[in-house]
Amino acid sequence: VIPRLASGAIAVDAMGGDEAPAEVVRGAVEAARDLSIPVVLVGQERALRRRLNALRPLPSSIDLVDAPEVVRMDDSPLVVLRSKRRSSLSVGAELVRDGLASALVTAGNTGAAWVTARAVLGMLEGVDRPALAAILPGAGGSTLLLDVGATLECRPHHFRQFAVMGSCYAASVLGVPQPRVGLLSVGEEEGKGGRRLQEYFRVLDSAGINFVGNIDGRDLYGQAADVVVCDGFTGNVILKVSESLGEMIISTLADEARRSPLYGVGLVVAKGAFRNLRRRVDYSEHGGAPVLGVNGACLIGHGRSSAKAIRNAIRYARSYADSGILERMAAQIAQVEAVDANGPIRRPGR
Amino acid sequence: VIPRLASGAIAVDAMGGDEAPAEVVRGAVEAARDLSIPVVLVGQERALRRRLNALRPLPSSIDLVDAPEVVRMDDSPLVVLRSKRRSSLSVGAELVRDGLASALVTAGNTGAAWVTARAVLGMLEGVDRPALAAILPGAGGSTLLLDVGATLECRPHHFRQFAVMGSCYAASVLGVPQPRVGLLSVGEEEGKGGRRLQEYFRVLDSAGINFVGNIDGRDLYGQAADVVVCDGFTGNVILKVSESLGEMIISTLADEARRSPLYGVGLVVAKGAFRNLRRRVDYSEHGGAPVLGVNGACLIGHGRSSAKAIRNAIRYARSYADSGILERMAAQIAQVEAVDANGPIRRPGR
Repeated sequence: VIPRLASGAIAVDAMGGDEAPAEVVRGAVEAARDLSIPVVLVGQERALRRRLNALRPLPSSIDLVDAPEVVRMDDSPLVVLRSKRRSSLSVGAELVRDGLASALVTAGNTGAAWVTARAVLGMLEGVDRPALAAILPGAGGSTLLLDVGATLECRPHHFRQFAVMGSCYAASVLGVPQPRVGLLSVGEEEGKGGRRLQEYFRVLDSAGINFVGNIDGRDLYGQAADVVVCDGFTGNVILKVSESLGEMIISTLADEARRSPLYGVGLVVAKGAFRNLRRRVDYSEHGGAPVLGVNGACLIGHGRSSAKAIRNAIRYARSYADSGILERMAAQIAQVEAVDANGPIRRPGR
Repeated sequence: VIPRLASGAIAVDAMGGDEAPAEVVRGAVEAARDLSIPVVLVGQERALRRRLNALRPLPSSIDLVDAPEVVRMDDSPLVVLRSKRRSSLSVGAELVRDGLASALVTAGNTGAAWVTARAVLGMLEGVDRPALAAILPGAGGSTLLLDVGATLECRPHHFRQFAVMGSCYAASVLGVPQPRVGLLSVGEEEGKGGRRLQEYFRVLDSAGINFVGNIDGRDLYGQAADVVVCDGFTGNVILKVSESLGEMIISTLADEARRSPLYGVGLVVAKGAFRNLRRRVDYSEHGGAPVLGVNGACLIGHGRSSAKAIRNAIRYARSYADSGILERMAAQIAQVEAVDANGPIRRPGR
């Protein structure tokens, strides 16, 4: 039974994530209470009702929709799609498809999430392949990297569509005026990176976006661009290598602290600095990764999302849903593809 | 004029690197003195003689060969190849080609170095494309990653050749018995990573090496394999992103230290822990990146190589030259390619 939902509510997959449902429910309640965003929790009703009762008094703008099945973090996306049609993930996506919610937030199985979003919501008109866009934090701001795993092997026009979608998202949801869009490459000069990269460069250069050229891997965390485009294989590797390197650094420092009491004292005193560092580099704190190219707003948070990360993701999902970005993306892609058939369009301001 | 060189000496490009020639000359003198490795410094004779004089008394096993031209860090590799034929890099490679030195060490322009090594030394028989192999340090050991930038776009048999070469290098030079060789992928299961990756998997699985399957980006710094194979574009991006992320973390912590005097004190007390961390993660300390697939031993150190890093690279170059690995690599590749024409060979121990 679908209850009467608050208009424009954000559907939250309450069963997805390492800390689900506890942290997810807490984050959702905080968003409803502190940010006045109507939220629909989707998941196993009895378990969720118990969690909610423990958090009373509850804001009135929090609702609940039952979904009996749970997607596990290690479930194969295609198995989920075929055999878990009544999961919190599927039911949440259906709420968005049917206009009963304006966006979906999940911290669950990433592969299952974008595959389900694509299957349930369908593709945005004119878009061939979905892209998962991750927010990479940096010392002076953040960079939107896409694709990070939805489309492993890309053709040039996929790069163009990713660039347009990433640019739209950065402008409309992240609030970056005239986002600088770069192409991940080896070296900065045009013509670097082999034949395939040169073709991508040519295509982005005529995509009607603020294309700033090649971005060397060295500059990815240096805010050389607001949006960086790469294929899903490379992007996925970047994301995971970054995470694993960060963990290696932390564990090496912990090791040093154990070996030298003096270093240990120093590191304990500086603990707050590490906490702040972690906050700055943890992309879950930055609102989650949008699945771009599907016909609806869907944000995927990190599996380890805390209540605060869920709250942030809900806030971004609200901006995403309110931005009217889907129509704009579709229009811009239609325009670029049409012009491409006739000749290149020039980018603005150059 | 080529002097009578000590037999088996290591040629060192004295003009290559951000700190050249000062640190390079110091490192070379240390290797000759402390490790008893005969070294030939190649570069602008007058400048080098002045540096050497300042380091007296000199070990007898250090020699000097004049090369008037200098390759700058931002020179285009192809321009170097065409117009700087008398650079320290070219002359050093020629010493190896002509049997006057047993290996070349350079901390200069990476692209120019491998392009020159390939042009001067030629390819090893049966090898189609060169691979640059970087040593990624981890908390519990290191991983050899190849290719990191010499062959940006790969065919399946390039992956096979990289795997065989990387396995030989890890076994013979790095001293890893039966090196575990993995394929960089997204997810660990066979069949992950798209069609192209599946083809690479199939080829590595029948390459007669100790193939351990897919390695997820998350496990790259976790010693899940001793050798990891990927295309040069992905490897180059990984290397540069890792470096840039490390720098971002350090600069963020420095920033925190400025903002909070307490954190600052803690970080100063723990300074030695960071120094040790830096030592463990700085790949220049681990002996430089070999150019595999060329017919001679050539190691490329990090541009920022210190005297100690140069000394280490010379030590590894000596092991490389003494290992007799080139013949073994060529034989193994010939075998694998021949069997491939007739059917798969099985890997050992499975």
